[in-house]
Amino acid sequence: MRFHEVGLRDGLQIESTVVPTDRKILWAEQSAASGLDIIQLGSFVHPDKVPQMADTDVLFRTLGPRKRGLNGPLHSGLVLNEKGLERGLACGVEMFCMGVSAGETHSRKNTGMSVDEALKRITAMAREAAAAGKIVQASVQSAFGCGFDGPIPESRVLDIVRAYLEAGIRAVSLADTAGHAHPAQVVRLFRAVQELDPGVETAAHFHNTYGLGLANVWAAFEAGVSTFESAFGGLGGCPFTKTAAGNVATEDLVHMFQRMGFRPDIRCDGLVELARDVARFFNRELPGLVYRTGPLDFTRRTDP
Amino acid sequence: MRFHEVGLRDGLQIESTVVPTDRKILWAEQSAASGLDIIQLGSFVHPDKVPQMADTDVLFRTLGPRKRGLNGPLHSGLVLNEKGLERGLACGVEMFCMGVSAGETHSRKNTGMSVDEALKRITAMAREAAAAGKIVQASVQSAFGCGFDGPIPESRVLDIVRAYLEAGIRAVSLADTAGHAHPAQVVRLFRAVQELDPGVETAAHFHNTYGLGLANVWAAFEAGVSTFESAFGGLGGCPFTKTAAGNVATEDLVHMFQRMGFRPDIRCDGLVELARDVARFFNRELPGLVYRTGPLDFTRRTDP
Repeated sequence: MRFHEVGLRDGLQIESTVVPTDRKILWAEQSAASGLDIIQLGSFVHPDKVPQMADTDVLFRTLGPRKRGLNGPLHSGLVLNEKGLERGLACGVEMFCMGVSAGETHSRKNTGMSVDEALKRITAMAREAAAAGKIVQASVQSAFGCGFDGPIPESRVLDIVRAYLEAGIRAVSLADTAGHAHPAQVVRLFRAVQELDPGVETAAHFHNTYGLGLANVWAAFEAGVSTFESAFGGLGGCPFTKTAAGNVATEDLVHMFQRMGFRPDIRCDGLVELARDVARFFNRELPGLVYRTGPLDFTRRTDP
Repeated sequence: MRFHEVGLRDGLQIESTVVPTDRKILWAEQSAASGLDIIQLGSFVHPDKVPQMADTDVLFRTLGPRKRGLNGPLHSGLVLNEKGLERGLACGVEMFCMGVSAGETHSRKNTGMSVDEALKRITAMAREAAAAGKIVQASVQSAFGCGFDGPIPESRVLDIVRAYLEAGIRAVSLADTAGHAHPAQVVRLFRAVQELDPGVETAAHFHNTYGLGLANVWAAFEAGVSTFESAFGGLGGCPFTKTAAGNVATEDLVHMFQRMGFRPDIRCDGLVELARDVARFFNRELPGLVYRTGPLDFTRRTDP
């Protein structure tokens, strides 16, 4: 399995306190030193729209492939449109993440386009990125339910995935943007995606709004998902409400799999230190649990 | 599946603020009105040892079988020794919960007895309760790992369960007292218990110390577990540390299963109201999530 850290993007994008570039670099380096596989450095959106993401190009130029060495993590960047793709290609992004929302209202609010229009645009962008020799992962946002539209028919999610596969995309992420997913649905939907193409690489992205983040991860793992997206400390969602709508916490996620014997190479204590630094920076308690308790001692793992 | 509310016992026993009896009755009645199947009213321990549990007999006398009517929930009580069993029989307990710890240190600290000594005593008590026509559930505490001793060999857990079955006990609960359980272990251990006796009724009791509570519930459900123990608001564990070691929150648990279409008869909004009242009483945020966000509208459940 692979771990994709999206804290620097999905974790920070709704924070009003802008994180200085050197602090972001520190966090990216700490994620890398802990052994995570992919680190999303930011998104390519207009700086006026999301000031927190204004330094994404700088981050790629600073941490890019020439600096990270052969054993370092892959750096990914989220692109929303052609302008973003252009910026990403110019600053050396190796892995492009892009996607459409399965929720019509969410799609229009987010991009000003219908799902169909967005899909045409994204598949064209994916082809362009692939032609430039880049890794592409396409996601379906609100795949398990939409905060605006409620339930999303699974057929609509599968139609989008089919269009991705036809465009030659080999890595597909299903994102539970609103936190509506439940384990039975997760198993069903990921299995259906794999039936469309048994060779497709699947990624899962869950939010913990109703406490189901790790239950959904376990369900996705059982359904054959290989890549898990998460954010340090469980950051994400709106910090101004009581709603704990953050991402699955990276250190909680890694801790769970390490308890089961997977990925002993990852330094969970490094991830805990990172989450603690993030909590100190924002001066508040984060939703994650393991950064508070510390990880269980893995030399004492319970085995049969 | 059945839901066993243990908030009034496992949730409250470590709280320093003693909850007045009439408030406990209110919470028990709210749990009942919401449709939970079993409600644990308290434990029969010496009042000097746990003042919070001093009114357990009063609760049973007030809410006992004659008052609750035919469609109300079952009321359970935890007994630790013969004296407690005597008290429970005297005040009309219908379902007795009892158990031993699989951790030697935990057992000695809790009861002053070795695991073997405790097991002999508990099976004798179980026989006595059954002879009096009572329902008996026996648990293995620290079944998935012990806060003192670390990993617990699965063979030791199965030896205890075997002794329970030989004593005629038909309902067995495995309790993750320290929160060490992980989904793969949960599946393995509950399947092993069912292999000992395919007719045994199994219950699961998880703490959310490392965020794995609901993931473990889902794993247990897949392994055939039929009864789930939880506490309103996710209460439990020590409130004086940063360690969020509470029980699985009842309203989060029910919400998860209702999202999957199970138990639409339970009033999740009633459970949310209850958790909010508990949070107001203790004047602090509880670990549960759904009592903050409110449940998703089930009329908009995502189905294929």
